[in-house]
Formats: sequence, structure tokens, C-alpha cells
Amino acid sequence: MDKRIEVTDVILRDAHQSLMATRMALEDMLPACEDLDRAGYWSLECWGGATFDSCIRFLNEDPWERLRTFKRALPNTPTQMLLRGQNILGYRHYEDEVVDRFVDRAAKNGMDVFRVFDALNDPRNLERSIAAVKRTGKHAQGTICYTVSPVHTVAKFVELALTLKDMGCDSICIKDMAALIKPQPAYDIVKGIKETCGKDTVVHVHAHSTTGVTLVSLMKAIEAGADIVDTSISSMSLGPGHNPTESLVEMLEGTGFTTRLDLEPIYRVRDHFAEIRKRYAEFLTDYTGVETEIFKSQIPGGMLSNMESQLKQQGQGDRMKEVLEEVPRVRKAAGYPPLVTPSSQIVGTQAVLNVMMGRYKVMTGEFSDLMLGYYGSTDGPKDPEVVALAEEKSKKEVITGRPADLIPPEWDRLVAEASALEGYNGTEEDVLTYAMFPQVAPKFFANRHQGPLNLGKDPAFTRGLKADPMSPAFLSGPIEYKVTLDGKTKKVMVAPA
Amino acid sequence: MDKRIEVTDVILRDAHQSLMATRMALEDMLPACEDLDRAGYWSLECWGGATFDSCIRFLNEDPWERLRTFKRALPNTPTQMLLRGQNILGYRHYEDEVVDRFVDRAAKNGMDVFRVFDALNDPRNLERSIAAVKRTGKHAQGTICYTVSPVHTVAKFVELALTLKDMGCDSICIKDMAALIKPQPAYDIVKGIKETCGKDTVVHVHAHSTTGVTLVSLMKAIEAGADIVDTSISSMSLGPGHNPTESLVEMLEGTGFTTRLDLEPIYRVRDHFAEIRKRYAEFLTDYTGVETEIFKSQIPGGMLSNMESQLKQQGQGDRMKEVLEEVPRVRKAAGYPPLVTPSSQIVGTQAVLNVMMGRYKVMTGEFSDLMLGYYGSTDGPKDPEVVALAEEKSKKEVITGRPADLIPPEWDRLVAEASALEGYNGTEEDVLTYAMFPQVAPKFFANRHQGPLNLGKDPAFTRGLKADPMSPAFLSGPIEYKVTLDGKTKKVMVAPA
Repeated sequence: MDKRIEVTDVILRDAHQSLMATRMALEDMLPACEDLDRAGYWSLECWGGATFDSCIRFLNEDPWERLRTFKRALPNTPTQMLLRGQNILGYRHYEDEVVDRFVDRAAKNGMDVFRVFDALNDPRNLERSIAAVKRTGKHAQGTICYTVSPVHTVAKFVELALTLKDMGCDSICIKDMAALIKPQPAYDIVKGIKETCGKDTVVHVHAHSTTGVTLVSLMKAIEAGADIVDTSISSMSLGPGHNPTESLVEMLEGTGFTTRLDLEPIYRVRDHFAEIRKRYAEFLTDYTGVETEIFKSQIPGGMLSNMESQLKQQGQGDRMKEVLEEVPRVRKAAGYPPLVTPSSQIVGTQAVLNVMMGRYKVMTGEFSDLMLGYYGSTDGPKDPEVVALAEEKSKKEVITGRPADLIPPEWDRLVAEASALEGYNGTEEDVLTYAMFPQVAPKFFANRHQGPLNLGKDPAFTRGLKADPMSPAFLSGPIEYKVTLDGKTKKVMVAPA
Repeated sequence: MDKRIEVTDVILRDAHQSLMATRMALEDMLPACEDLDRAGYWSLECWGGATFDSCIRFLNEDPWERLRTFKRALPNTPTQMLLRGQNILGYRHYEDEVVDRFVDRAAKNGMDVFRVFDALNDPRNLERSIAAVKRTGKHAQGTICYTVSPVHTVAKFVELALTLKDMGCDSICIKDMAALIKPQPAYDIVKGIKETCGKDTVVHVHAHSTTGVTLVSLMKAIEAGADIVDTSISSMSLGPGHNPTESLVEMLEGTGFTTRLDLEPIYRVRDHFAEIRKRYAEFLTDYTGVETEIFKSQIPGGMLSNMESQLKQQGQGDRMKEVLEEVPRVRKAAGYPPLVTPSSQIVGTQAVLNVMMGRYKVMTGEFSDLMLGYYGSTDGPKDPEVVALAEEKSKKEVITGRPADLIPPEWDRLVAEASALEGYNGTEEDVLTYAMFPQVAPKFFANRHQGPLNLGKDPAFTRGLKADPMSPAFLSGPIEYKVTLDGKTKKVMVAPA
């Protein structure tokens, strides 16, 4: 009797976030939902910070309505979201009541599985949201952000898993957002969790495919006892995305493991998104091949392009090599945070400043907050000299407690501010939307009545856009045409103006 | 102490054959050779039937000169070629003397490793060329073409491996040209070979990446004892190509296996071909994602597009579904040949004819030859009714002996015919070129003095070609041009009417 391996498909959330800048409109996903719902998934990830942000920033779409619509369209399959712990879906810590209310509203609007993570792997940033999920009766999944550093041993990850389990998490996720997890560590961590937390501990592995090795890592994780894995259907897979669902299903044949997925509806979903994908060509990631240098640099692709553009803005585009060498030093000084939003941006920006202005001559507020504990604790020790500099420059003190404990009650203020906005619809959901994205929400509320935008374009048009009709390729030299006007034919030479 | 896993890179042969229609010019590969040569490969595959054909058909390049040039450019790494057994590099069986002379000349011109395969896995089609390689003192690698059918059990493949070993092969290759080999069969076959043929039997695994599962299969093959694997550097990998070399190197970390590859020069080669690849955009395969339906249909991508174009030529493009259902029946009737050149074309064409004209109403000469044993024996039994029909239609008889035994001596005739051609240079190599491709060689000999062609194009130009400048996308708004007419230059605005 084969062991059943369950699968979460990320095609409705992380796939288009990773491959097409989170721009996919709900209406382009709905036609696939009936087939997705019958394919036999453990869950379908369909909501998270970036999709929420994109809904109100680019798509004029109410993210809560998106959630309710998914729930109706997927009656037989649990919905799943990614929650940034105490950051909820935003970029700062929120006071506990906001966390509680957000989780409650998400559950009420149809969310079934909450994958809760913290960029620093600080359990104190997870405990409130996990407790909130437990109260709703929904599935609370505690998350380990996978990273590589001298302090991130197998034992360290297993210890975090045990903490999460003790908090009451229904399952443990190993989240490899940068495709860094190699087969052997994948095996060892899953094995360690099963041995330490009990073999009935449900282990779920999330991996991106950037480096090309992580389908092998999923295989080894499964051999070590992993119960659930994340994939994405092939037409929305690979590159900075995820491993293809179909390949996962097929690779298990004869191994003693099997999924309960039906490939018939999955192939229809594949064909649907293969067409939809073409409509978003202008947002598609440039490179869908394999990139392994991240194993050496530890720098995710998104962080790399951020730093490049920061350097270029300062006319110092030629100093990238110095910045690449500075990043590991800054990361070490900061106690080896995993490089994921927001720590990747914080570390990257400081590395750029160090190269341009001299080491720690200028320090961003975010970096000094990171050094002083305002994002939480890190797994590695921080450089005391840099901590002292951060205190001096920011006039703030080191904290060792849970960052959210410093935040005064804020719900009433958020309600008052949201209520004053044009187009506010009077719901707690709108207050939460405002709370998450206070800069973006006002415009969205005001324009919501105009209805959702679809940024997809006819592929023929998009192809034209990408090729740039004004590029020299099309007008590389004068071209001679025959032109007939009023019955007379003449030769004319045409060249770019 | 980790076990050393050796690697063959196929970037100079199978990679561009699989990804860009074999069009890459030697001059675009040479700048990478110094780095390839120092990276630490077991061998570099750089020659084969399709590259030989492409050299004389498209590139006006002498394939023997290509081989000699590679040998000079790769002084520290064995060169490797793919030899179609008794077919040598052509599409028919050759008389033994031609086989002997070809192998001898290839070895003299610089070939070190001969991977010898037969489309039907008939060892009698391999033995002469393997003996010829052994006489030159070079490395003879006997090949198992991997396929899936009711008769292709692990035991069957292991039995073939033993036969090849007994023939004196220096190593055994499992060749998975259609990316069909899943992790468990990969493990089982390698294990079986090691157990049956002896654990010192060198096993080399070649797999394409089309289905997305075969890097996992390489991992399991390595766990089972495989000694050498084929990969291709990332910028020339994936899709219908091969698994990325860098990913193979990285995935082994900590597993007890390790390569001796140095990634520094490999990254330089990657960057080189990332640029070169853009120059061949018009030949690039359309789809570089994952395709798993081949597990169900057993039909490789190239065969699929052949059949589609055959149907369309007959105005019956809507009957593809019937053809797809017919292919497995035809394959079964023919005794389950692996679907690889030329059997894939023979089976595919017959399936198309069966659908269009009625089952076996019309039979190609090639299909009746296949049914009657003129290509060799198949692993499965043939349908006796279809064999009888083939005899009746072709007026030929079933043969059970080695097909090449029926071929009268042909070397003197080949010399005489080649000698009569304009531009023949008097070498045995030219006779062999003519023998392989008698239709193409005459034009090549006549034009050879004009020197090699490079079909690569400036990427800006190619992008323009692909995007179709006449599409409405480029004329979506008014564009300003300078127009010169009768010596006077004016600026004009042009917009779609």
C-alpha cells in the first residue's frame, strides 16, 4: 500500500506572483476553478500579501471579494493563504487586536488553511496569529523559513519546528522561497522533525524551482516522511516559480508514494493558463531557466535587481561586484536573517549604502531597527559594534521583548481613519484593507465602484510592445518603398526621423 | 569519502540539436572550449548524425574538420560521439566494411568515446561497430534505448546490458531520449545492471528533461550506483534538452556523491552560450517548459509535429486525435519498438496512413521492412496478420538474420561514386561523408571551398523577424518618418488607415 502524498497547488497565488508580478485578474483564474476543485488537492493557495496588495494597487479588485469568490468556486478543496505573522499582510508589526480581527475576518470570508511565517523565524512573531487561527477552528500551519548560514543547522530548524508544534500548529511548513534547499538538507530536516516532533507531525514542503534542484529535494523530503508538497501546474511553473505538479505526480510512480491527483482536469487547467499567460507577456519574468549562483551569493533574484536599480539611480552601476561582496558581511552583522521580505530589502539597501557612502556611515531606519531587535530576534548573534552604531544613529535602544508588545492599541484609530475615506463600505474588511496598505487603500476605496481591471492584453498586441517598434531593428537603415498616390507610382526612401 | 560521479556535457552536440535544430556553427562553440576543457568532464559529446548532417546540409562546414578542430581545442578531455550502430550516421544499414572504415577514420580524426546505439535495441546491429571501436583502442559504450511498453521490463534491459558487456563494451549507457525514465525504473535498472554485470560495470545515464522528472531519475540512478551522467550547462538546457550541469553539481552536496567539476569555468561557458543562443532565436524550440503527456501517449514531440504536418498536407488536420489513438496500436503490431529515429517516423507515418486510408490499406516500404525484420528484431512479438500483409504488399519475405548480412560489399562503389563528384578531396573521409548522405554530399563538396556559414543572426534583427513588423501591433499609433522623394526630405506621420 503506497503512502499518500498530498499536494497544494500554488497556481492561484505564488505562481503568478513569482512569474508575472502578481498581476493576474480573478476573472482569468475562475474558469480553471472547477477543474482545480475536482483534481484532488489537499489545498489551493490563493491569497497572500502580494496578491492583496496587487488587487487594490493595480487591479481595482476587492481582495475580500476575491477570497469569497474563490471559496464559492472551490467548494470541495480547502483554500490556503500566506500570512506574515505579526505583519499580517503588511510591512510592519501590528498590534494584537488587528491580528486577531484579520484572522477572524479571513476565516469568515472563506479561508481554511493559514500558513504563518516570520521573516526572522522569531516564534514570538508567530504565536498571536497562530492562536487566532486556532480560535477560528481553521488549520494553523507554522512555518520555518529555510536559509543557509553557519548558524542554520538541521538542529536549529528542528528546534523551531518543535516550538511551532508546541504552540498548537496543525502542521509544519518548510518554506524555501529562494530555491536553496538541496536534497540532503531537505531529507535531514524532515527526518529530524519527524523524529523530534513525532511521526504524526504533518510536514509540508514549499520550494521554488529557481536553482533546478528542488524537485529532487521534494523527492528526498518525501522519502524522509514529508506529507504534503507545494507545486504549480506546468504552464505556470519553473524559473523563479515552482516545480510542475504533473512532474511530481509522475515521478512518484513505483516509488511507494502516490498522490490522489487526477491529471485529466489538471491538463485542462494547464491549457487554460498556457493561453492566459500569453496575455500577461509584459509582466512575465525574463528568465525561466535555471540559476544556481544564488547558492554562492545567497542573494535572491528580486533582491539583486533591487540593488542594481538602487546603484544605477546613483550613477554607480559599476559597483555591483562590491555590493555582492558586502551583502554577506551585512547579513552576518545582522545575525544571519533569512533573506526574504522584508529582511532581504533591508540588508540589500544597507549593503548598497555601505559601498556608496562607507561602511555604516549612513544607516537606514529599517536596518537600525533590525539591529536593535524591532523586527524580532535573529538566529545568529549580532555584531555588537554595529548594534552600538545603530543605537547612536537612531537614538533608539536595543529591545529584547516581542516587538508587538510596544505597539499601543490601534484598532479604534484605524476604524476612525478608514471611516473618513471616500468609498469606505463600512465593513471591518475595509478597515483591515486600510490597515494593511494605508497609502493605497484610499484611492482603491474611491475607485472601487468602477470595477476590476484586467491588465492582460491580446498577445499580438503584447508581442508588439515587447519588440519595441521604435527600436533600430525595425528602422535600421533607409528602406525604399513604392508609393502610389493619385494613380502615380514613385519610389520613396524612408528612414527614422 | 564521497563517491566520485563523472559527467559528460552534451552542450556541443545534443543540446543544440534538441534546442535549436542542430544549427550551431563551430565558430560559436570554439570560444567555450578552453573553459569546457578545464572544467573536469569525463567527456564532451560533440559529434553525431544530426550534427554531421547539419554541417553539410546547412552550415557548409566539413564535419571531419569540425572533429579535428574540437580535438585540438579540447586537449585534456575525451571527445564523445553518438553512433547509430550499423546505420553509422545515416538512415540505412551499411555493409560491415563501411562501418569499420568509418569508426577507424573517426578515431584517427580525434574521437575518443563511441556511444553506440540501435533504435530497436537489436544487439546484432551493434556488434560490428563495437568490435570496430575496440580495434581502435578507443572507448566503446554499448547503449540501451530506454522505452516503456509491456515487454520492456527491468529484466529485459538488464539482459541487454549483459549482452553488451559480453561484447566487450567498456561501459553501458542507458539512453532516455524521450525523458520517459522515472526515478524508480532508473534506480531499478542501474541496480540490476550492477548486480548482474558486476559492480565494476561502468553505467552512464543519458536523459532529456522534457517531462521534468529526470533530474530526480539521475539522483536515483546515482544512488543505485550509476557512475557517469549526461547534463548540459544551464543556458543550453531544459525543455526538450537536458538537465542543467550546475544543478547536478549542486544537488549532490552532502549526499555522499560528488563531481569533480569546477563551476567557475562552467559559469563562463554558461554566459557565452546565453549570448550565442540569442543569435539562433529563429531556430529555437518554441516550448522550453515541461511536457508530461508523453508518459501517456509515448509519442515524442518531434514525432507529434511530423504527424501533424503530414495530416495538414492532406487537409485532414482535424484527425489528430484518431492518429494519437492509432500510434499505440501500430507500435504494438510492430513489436513495441522504442520510438526513436528512425522507428518513430516509420510508426508515425503508418499511423497517419491507417487513419486516412483505412488500417494497413496502404503500407510504406519502411513499415513493411520494419515488420519483416529488415531493421532488425524487436523486443516484442509482431502481429502475424500485419506481417502477412507486409509480405503480400511488399513482395518481400520475413528475415530473421542480421539485416546487414544481406548487403553486398559496397565500399568500392562508394569510392567510385564519390570520386566522380566535383570538389571531392580524395580522402576516405569524403567517401564516408558521401556514403552517409549521398543526396547532400555532392552539393557540399562543390560548395565547400566557399567556407562555413554561420546561420546565427544579430538578436535585434531576429527579434524583429519573430515579432512581424507588419502586424497591427507596430502600427497602433502614428509614427514619424523621414521620407525622401525626388531629392526632397520631409517628415511624415504614418498611422494605420
